[in-house]
Amino acid sequence: IVTIKTLVFPSETSDSYVEMVPLKPLQLKAFTLCMRLATELKGEREVILFAYRTGDYDELNVWRELDGRLSFYLSGDGVFFQVPELGALKTHLCVTWDSSSGAATVFMDGRKSLTKIYKKGHTIRAGGKVLLGQDPDSYLGDYDAKQSFVGEVCDVNMWDSVLPDRTIKDLVSGKRVQRGNVFDWETIQLKISGTVEVIHREL
Amino acid sequence: IVTIKTLVFPSETSDSYVEMVPLKPLQLKAFTLCMRLATELKGEREVILFAYRTGDYDELNVWRELDGRLSFYLSGDGVFFQVPELGALKTHLCVTWDSSSGAATVFMDGRKSLTKIYKKGHTIRAGGKVLLGQDPDSYLGDYDAKQSFVGEVCDVNMWDSVLPDRTIKDLVSGKRVQRGNVFDWETIQLKISGTVEVIHREL
Amino acid sequence: IVTIKTLVFPSETSDSYVEMVPLKPLQLKAFTLCMRLATELKGEREVILFAYRTGDYDELNVWRELDGRLSFYLSGDGVFFQVPELGALKTHLCVTWDSSSGAATVFMDGRKSLTKIYKKGHTIRAGGKVLLGQDPDSYLGDYDAKQSFVGEVCDVNMWDSVLPDRTIKDLVSGKRVQRGNVFDWETIQLKISGTVEVIHREL
Repeated sequence: IVTIKTLVFPSETSDSYVEMVPLKPLQLKAFTLCMRLATELKGEREVILFAYRTGDYDELNVWRELDGRLSFYLSGDGVFFQVPELGALKTHLCVTWDSSSGAATVFMDGRKSLTKIYKKGHTIRAGGKVLLGQDPDSYLGDYDAKQSFVGEVCDVNMWDSVLPDRTIKDLVSGKRVQRGNVFDWETIQLKISGTVEVIHREL
Repeated sequence: IVTIKTLVFPSETSDSYVEMVPLKPLQLKAFTLCMRLATELKGEREVILFAYRTGDYDELNVWRELDGRLSFYLSGDGVFFQVPELGALKTHLCVTWDSSSGAATVFMDGRKSLTKIYKKGHTIRAGGKVLLGQDPDSYLGDYDAKQSFVGEVCDVNMWDSVLPDRTIKDLVSGKRVQRGNVFDWETIQLKISGTVEVIHREL
Repeated sequence: IVTIKTLVFPSETSDSYVEMVPLKPLQLKAFTLCMRLATELKGEREVILFAYRTGDYDELNVWRELDGRLSFYLSGDGVFFQVPELGALKTHLCVTWDSSSGAATVFMDGRKSLTKIYKKGHTIRAGGKVLLGQDPDSYLGDYDAKQSFVGEVCDVNMWDSVLPDRTIKDLVSGKRVQRGNVFDWETIQLKISGTVEVIHREL
């Protein structure tokens, strides 16, 4: 039986979060970001799923929106996807974006969304911090409990390129076909603040 | 083509149900209960999915709640999971529980939920009856049509242990990796009351 | 990487549609119709997914209904299935019907619905036109933008028989186990009207 370390955020807080130390600077013209997560937070509440902020900008934030849509924001307005609601069942979620075409997609459990054109030509800037659990409204501060993550998250991996659909399907089924070169969950350095449990779950 | 016997409950009644005869007494400190089911009963109605009652207690009842959540109850308050709504598409549903840790989970089509801690140290008592289709509010009586099951159900199997996630995924795809030792649908003895059709469907 | 031609209907119109030329007349006593599609059109709006009309009759129309259910109509009242809502994630959808038994089912991503009995003994008539994108309320006319399709659709294939469940599961995963004998997307002749983009996507 293969197990994987899993972060459990047991309740709504404004001070529990996990900083993930990247393997290389997040100066990115393309990315694939994947994670497995489950959250029972329901409607009428935003939920932060991933926050990368430099001094003045939210460089890459992934959200579950008020209305259940998934979205991500690259310093400015976001791009939105109407997808099945997150819930108690663990979902393998990936987000991909490529600056040269502007192509933005999400995958849930290997199912790919339609493609949206978003922020063509943009570059994500290096030099910030990546957090799970909270959305910083200033550099590493101003957290809002009403946007915090509650639930389980694991297997957070990131690449500086768009992976083929086939590779993403393999990741869902647990094949470690390609280690993340920005974040690799197997070797990642995590800095935990507040109340976050680290447990091992069967993958 | 492999076929499987399937129970069709064609309409709402207070007298149609199927008793399942177990292979051993249901004195249980752990279990995995699986079934395939489809029901188009929608919101604002509870639906009983499995009822095991001894003289005075609902020992193990599995429900689709008013708000669409799945739940189960071990003689007392229940544990709830916010999951995709049951509907016309057949869902492979499993529920697992282990007394020693209290770990309770559900699986839908092989996707596992987050883990909840529920009734640690409890034991399910032997000596009752197991029904599909109705919830008895007294020992084998007091059925409520507004809670009855309408739809199709098959492949109901139960084990006196928690199966590995991998085994549950294999069950979804139809691999008969391990026969149930409490209920084994292939050899099960069923006692049918009221209007329930038994048909054979492709698995 | 295998790619597939994909039709993108970028916005709501009353004049954008694609006619599909069949390989044989649609005189049918059974069929399997499959497609991959994604649409973010939400509630309170009907969406036409497939329209086959002869002079005076809607011979075979597939709809996403106001309330999110899927349905199809064989010249008259329809049959309805309560299923997960279509959205941004691409769904592999199949509809099957057999005149001799009246058995009607839908499949979403290989998951089969319960079976409904519908129009036993009926025959679909030959001699009409098949459209994607619009529902003609007269023969090739009277389109309603409020029912038009917006989103992506590809891999539309049709057979004059009911395929085994196993074959449909293989189609979902991209195995070209059996080419459609009424429509075969790989070789299909398409007649495009209005604003419809044809792009190639990874399958």
